[in-house]
Amino acid sequence: MREPAAIIGAGHTRFGARTEGPRSLIAEAVREAFASVDRGIERSVIEEGFLATLGFGGWQIGNASAVLAEAAGLVGVPVTRVENACASGGYAIRSAARAVEDGRSGVVLVVGLEKMTDSPNPRRRYWLGVSGDTEWERSAGLTFAGVYGLIASRYCADHPKGRDALSAVAVKNHANGALNPKAHFQKTVRPAEVEGSPKIADPLGLYDCCPVSDGAAALLIARGDLASRFTDTPVRIRGLGAASDTLAVQDRPVLTEFGATQRAARAALGHAGWTASSVQMLEVHDCFTIAELLALEDLGFAAPGEAVDLTLSGATARTARLPVNPDGGLKAKGHPIGATGVSQAYEIFHQLRASAGPRQVPGVERGLSHNVGGSGASATVTLFERR
Amino acid sequence: MREPAAIIGAGHTRFGARTEGPRSLIAEAVREAFASVDRGIERSVIEEGFLATLGFGGWQIGNASAVLAEAAGLVGVPVTRVENACASGGYAIRSAARAVEDGRSGVVLVVGLEKMTDSPNPRRRYWLGVSGDTEWERSAGLTFAGVYGLIASRYCADHPKGRDALSAVAVKNHANGALNPKAHFQKTVRPAEVEGSPKIADPLGLYDCCPVSDGAAALLIARGDLASRFTDTPVRIRGLGAASDTLAVQDRPVLTEFGATQRAARAALGHAGWTASSVQMLEVHDCFTIAELLALEDLGFAAPGEAVDLTLSGATARTARLPVNPDGGLKAKGHPIGATGVSQAYEIFHQLRASAGPRQVPGVERGLSHNVGGSGASATVTLFERR
Repeated sequence: MREPAAIIGAGHTRFGARTEGPRSLIAEAVREAFASVDRGIERSVIEEGFLATLGFGGWQIGNASAVLAEAAGLVGVPVTRVENACASGGYAIRSAARAVEDGRSGVVLVVGLEKMTDSPNPRRRYWLGVSGDTEWERSAGLTFAGVYGLIASRYCADHPKGRDALSAVAVKNHANGALNPKAHFQKTVRPAEVEGSPKIADPLGLYDCCPVSDGAAALLIARGDLASRFTDTPVRIRGLGAASDTLAVQDRPVLTEFGATQRAARAALGHAGWTASSVQMLEVHDCFTIAELLALEDLGFAAPGEAVDLTLSGATARTARLPVNPDGGLKAKGHPIGATGVSQAYEIFHQLRASAGPRQVPGVERGLSHNVGGSGASATVTLFERR
Repeated sequence: MREPAAIIGAGHTRFGARTEGPRSLIAEAVREAFASVDRGIERSVIEEGFLATLGFGGWQIGNASAVLAEAAGLVGVPVTRVENACASGGYAIRSAARAVEDGRSGVVLVVGLEKMTDSPNPRRRYWLGVSGDTEWERSAGLTFAGVYGLIASRYCADHPKGRDALSAVAVKNHANGALNPKAHFQKTVRPAEVEGSPKIADPLGLYDCCPVSDGAAALLIARGDLASRFTDTPVRIRGLGAASDTLAVQDRPVLTEFGATQRAARAALGHAGWTASSVQMLEVHDCFTIAELLALEDLGFAAPGEAVDLTLSGATARTARLPVNPDGGLKAKGHPIGATGVSQAYEIFHQLRASAGPRQVPGVERGLSHNVGGSGASATVTLFERR
């Protein structure tokens, strides 16, 4: 039986439209991660690095793993770039946690990064679309918002209060983001503002969509038996799940379910020996408001269609029974692609250590993060526990 | 002590200017890999996949890991895309071999892929350059051939017979490629042709440079204790080494040494408990002829400058003492970026199993592959043994 890997430090830039380049963003997140280690840590301790990024591996500057090695002060150390579209962060954490659980390394660094504004790529308004299906969706003109709009249309047709629940997701996540100094958007919104926002892909309006953000996040992950050298309150990685699905939503049996999320959740819960009821808080991949409802169902926290009532009941609010996205989620905190999965773990690290400040969820010891690539073609689920 | 992972099957498309798209190239390599398993294998046995590719992760079609899952018939299974510039294949093999060595999976699939011709990317003539240093090299107009040209200039200034040795590398690798039905170039060249070829970056001419190729390669890697279910002649992965270096060559102490290769070689040899003299054949990263000379020195097969005499003596020919690149190397076989590291392992798989046909190296049981990213900013070294 392997001892679970332990997060011993975490860092995070503010998300948003940042003027800095990739190296500066990496360095900022890494600096905070090193500084956050309770008993301190030398950079020379790091034996391996993992970098999650989508665009920063060719379009912009390539050989991004070597850039991480330089920017983090780790030249010489092997660094692996992991790219699984918007689930890059989750997959990178999985690779890193396995490396230490299996005893390959003592302490590793994981960084997630994206620079989405001011991109030198001439097709920048276009590049996210390549993470969906190209042959049947993108070439036909379907954007990501379009795919999620189709899913939301089906969902709202099946569940009459669906639109109200979408708005409730946006209102809740903006309220949480307003308490998060690292969030892209730090302002609350009212349901009428969400519903009155310009339509992007019916029924989804502007406030149903996450923004285009820059940012980076970093984690220091130690072998379980080494964690106590660095801190008395490590956050253990208890379960790792990952899965794939078809790229095109038309190839799936049900439009309103993500099989990759379902499979990843089963794998992670099985790994940890947990059930959904073991989990006290969630970070889910709400790239669009509809995605949070699907996530609650696919992860096993609500039966199909029942995420509507769960959300409208207020149970997913920050201080309620099952807090979901206390950091504001992708919706309000922002979604710098490669950084997102790592950012989710950063939030859970602080929530479980009770160091989340004004947005602290009271008394949580076990959390789940859920990261999706494309429109459900890949997913990871990761389970965390304090101590 | 972990039991080494075992390669039980391998596939490879012909390299060259291919009219097929990425899905077809993946499917072709994967089909051959499955068909090559001596006692047969069901696709349902595969628990995880790894994809090495540079451009096929955003520029072209994104979410490449999900494309691999579809093209290989593995929808549902987690697939991780690994990208480390031209060393992507080596890093993907490392991730895959670790996953089975550590008991995470029973059998995994590794695919390397690149589609470099007919790229829809408007900057395609430019995109390799992003894997080098941007701030000091690319923005100043230095291409990859330019960087290697600088290195070759220094090397030839230090070692008067250097230019003869560069030509000998090209002649040898073309001779080997002429025997390889999967090679991009299957023709021999004479020293005078190499030396008379148009200059690309002095002293490197056209025949000192690898071509721009399309292609894919695939490996099936099994947990050591499972290998005998599939074949009596698995090829074991005995040593895994990986390392990084600065992106810009100006930041390194010596222009004619790649520290990442040196570190990766030390790690791999240490892992296996081997010395360089344990190795009977090499696949090295000869993106330019100078790179083969550097590799021989950095890997420990020649002292600095002595790769000249080693090469001119004929010792690295296919049937000589230390065969190097019996498949033609990147120089003649081609260099579809993500596929290259996987292709090297394909060659060693067949050489160690004595199934390499007309290009068979006589009586080899232990081989080494060496994969470099950028102009030396990342590298892997992998050690293989039959049985």
